[in-house]
Amino acid sequence: MNLTITDVRLTPILVADPPLLNTQGVHQPYTPRLIVEVETADGVVGVGETYGDTKYLELARPFAERLHGRQVSDLNGLFTVADEVAVDAARISGQVDVGGLRGVQTADKLRLSVVSGFEVACLDALGKALGLPVHTLLGGKVRDSVEFSAYLFYKWAAHPAGAPAEADDWGAALDPAGVVAQARRFKDRYGFTSFKLKGGVFPPDEEIAAVRALAEAFPGHPLRLDPNGAWSVETSLKVAKELGDVLEYLEDPALGTPAMAAVAAGTDVPLATNMCVTTFGEIREAFTRGAVQVVLSDHHYWGGLRNTRELAAVCRTFGVGVSMHSNTHLGISLAAMTHVAATVPDLHHACDSHYPWQSEDVLTERLTFDAGRVTVSDKPGLGVELDHERLRRLHRRWLDDDGTLRDRDDAAAMRVAEPGWTTPAVPRW
Amino acid sequence: MNLTITDVRLTPILVADPPLLNTQGVHQPYTPRLIVEVETADGVVGVGETYGDTKYLELARPFAERLHGRQVSDLNGLFTVADEVAVDAARISGQVDVGGLRGVQTADKLRLSVVSGFEVACLDALGKALGLPVHTLLGGKVRDSVEFSAYLFYKWAAHPAGAPAEADDWGAALDPAGVVAQARRFKDRYGFTSFKLKGGVFPPDEEIAAVRALAEAFPGHPLRLDPNGAWSVETSLKVAKELGDVLEYLEDPALGTPAMAAVAAGTDVPLATNMCVTTFGEIREAFTRGAVQVVLSDHHYWGGLRNTRELAAVCRTFGVGVSMHSNTHLGISLAAMTHVAATVPDLHHACDSHYPWQSEDVLTERLTFDAGRVTVSDKPGLGVELDHERLRRLHRRWLDDDGTLRDRDDAAAMRVAEPGWTTPAVPRW
Repeated sequence: MNLTITDVRLTPILVADPPLLNTQGVHQPYTPRLIVEVETADGVVGVGETYGDTKYLELARPFAERLHGRQVSDLNGLFTVADEVAVDAARISGQVDVGGLRGVQTADKLRLSVVSGFEVACLDALGKALGLPVHTLLGGKVRDSVEFSAYLFYKWAAHPAGAPAEADDWGAALDPAGVVAQARRFKDRYGFTSFKLKGGVFPPDEEIAAVRALAEAFPGHPLRLDPNGAWSVETSLKVAKELGDVLEYLEDPALGTPAMAAVAAGTDVPLATNMCVTTFGEIREAFTRGAVQVVLSDHHYWGGLRNTRELAAVCRTFGVGVSMHSNTHLGISLAAMTHVAATVPDLHHACDSHYPWQSEDVLTERLTFDAGRVTVSDKPGLGVELDHERLRRLHRRWLDDDGTLRDRDDAAAMRVAEPGWTTPAVPRW
Repeated sequence: MNLTITDVRLTPILVADPPLLNTQGVHQPYTPRLIVEVETADGVVGVGETYGDTKYLELARPFAERLHGRQVSDLNGLFTVADEVAVDAARISGQVDVGGLRGVQTADKLRLSVVSGFEVACLDALGKALGLPVHTLLGGKVRDSVEFSAYLFYKWAAHPAGAPAEADDWGAALDPAGVVAQARRFKDRYGFTSFKLKGGVFPPDEEIAAVRALAEAFPGHPLRLDPNGAWSVETSLKVAKELGDVLEYLEDPALGTPAMAAVAAGTDVPLATNMCVTTFGEIREAFTRGAVQVVLSDHHYWGGLRNTRELAAVCRTFGVGVSMHSNTHLGISLAAMTHVAATVPDLHHACDSHYPWQSEDVLTERLTFDAGRVTVSDKPGLGVELDHERLRRLHRRWLDDDGTLRDRDDAAAMRVAEPGWTTPAVPRW
């Protein structure tokens, strides 16, 4: 058995994305992802997936070169490699990432977002080489399936006319009735029993009405609302008060640890986050101040599946809950999320996933939700297979793009419909 | 490859221990350890080692029964098994463990101390089955050797006459000159360059003089002093002030988080601990209060090598250092400590080990220190081999014991020399 890495292939792609609304704008018709393939001397190929925007590609290329000759089992060494790759300071704002609502941007976080793609690919290859599923490489599953939540969005029926886009059959959802109809379809199709609404799109009263409508349509089902930090502390507390009886948690109502801490101090509704705490460096202050009660991990930017387990350990130690965040992703990442989630003992909330919104994938067979759950594969590695023809087609789309869609920009997508739109200042309400 | 556990063997043993002094008394002539063997359906045998006192044996036996039919790769599942094993409440004082100065006693900690023996045995078996060293199962080594510190003790030349005991050739060390001579021998024999003195034995001024003598004999070498919580806050601050210029850290000067926090607030000398923080449950308060600057992990009671890595992640997140504690142990545990230490990126202090004090072992070949370091084995599993004849002999000693030495009791050992001795109340000084 030779675990030496002899080839690394990076394939940026553009995948169809419906016109989902958030506080910064709307999803572009196509969103960039990066598919990573790591091949060993024995010809075993492992696959990984991460963000595909230019700033990630810039880092991934020199990173990939440094992997040649290393072992796919040397997972701790990936962080050493990451440290050796220079990050263009111009890419780092130190501010909240405007492309995807995923918290602060730092050089380390950018590196970790790239590490995760390689880590998953290495784990997949290692599992295949050893004949063990990825969950076994993480110490073994403690559950056979992982529960996911329906991820509801305000959305348009279609992307603005003019630009190329794939059609979707979900229809519009711009009011409480539309949100409930979307939720019902999610429940009927996939069996989800908990619902998360992406908020921050309409004035809080409208979103309160939507959540209230969900509560009436699905009594007793866990509900969440996530305005991506669009609210002031005062507004956050108002929403918490009005929806306290039906919310499982409120996600990132306000931006930053001081505001989140102020909200937490004024309500019993737990606060979840994928914006306030998105790096290990942000944990100390947030936990000490009691600013968050649930951290929504995203293995992409936390640095992989093993770092996600470490994050879960930190949360467990401090009595903070843990669950999973999602940005637009494909089946490789859903498989990776499912493997790691299956190994985390105290996962008390259904995980988020955009996957049902993605009509395209690079796998030979899509993953499926049954009763809102994804079964953990016991096949070697991740248990997924790359469809090279599909990959080629989505890569062709990336090659053909003139550059406008290679970097996710929800505000730019919004300007197509509303010229003059800019990312709203926060707090927006 | 069949990783199913088909046999688990538990062998309690008594190993020779020199008359090393601490604040509670003196090491008994023999100390109990438990050797664990886990065998798979393919006949692969993994070995582990943990505490061997009766309370651990009581738990290990039902635990072992439940392992039959499980996979050696199911490491997360070991904690589930642990939860199923009932702990005799009479064994749990909730107070500091008097048998070994290793912090609070809780049911969970007792369970974790047993888990660790099985976890190491499973990792050893899994590594052998896969052809991978244990460090690779932990994500890969980030260094090729691990630095250890010389563990200096005040000691008698021999155990009290009358009872059976093995002789040692270290001689007595009961004053600064004796401590320096011992340190010199450690340095000459094993190449250690940092020195830890177990204190709490003599009045603080005598121990200050001993550390001062070490500083003069070995200028620039990192020095540590560990009175096992024997001092008041006031005394701790006095020692910190007098030795601040030569101490790498002060270990457990006072007992409990409030006292440690008070000491930490009054000195720049970092405080290390294996008594204040010995469970995940103690971390939150201690870290929030800044009570400790270095946690000395002990994989035995933290629940194994993977938990040790999680502890290191928690420490890293909170800017607290991490290194390794040691109780009397044999080569299996030294190998385990070395594997995990090799994978922890931010290990900034030499680890503790009693190993040089142990003249007996159960391995075919002893591990060695070169320039104060143990080389990390790249052989499959831990890279050690059990000597069954040696194991049989030490087990025979355990069988022949009338029960007086089967539970470590440093105060009882002291009473042999000083009738009427009881464990001193703390603070002792």
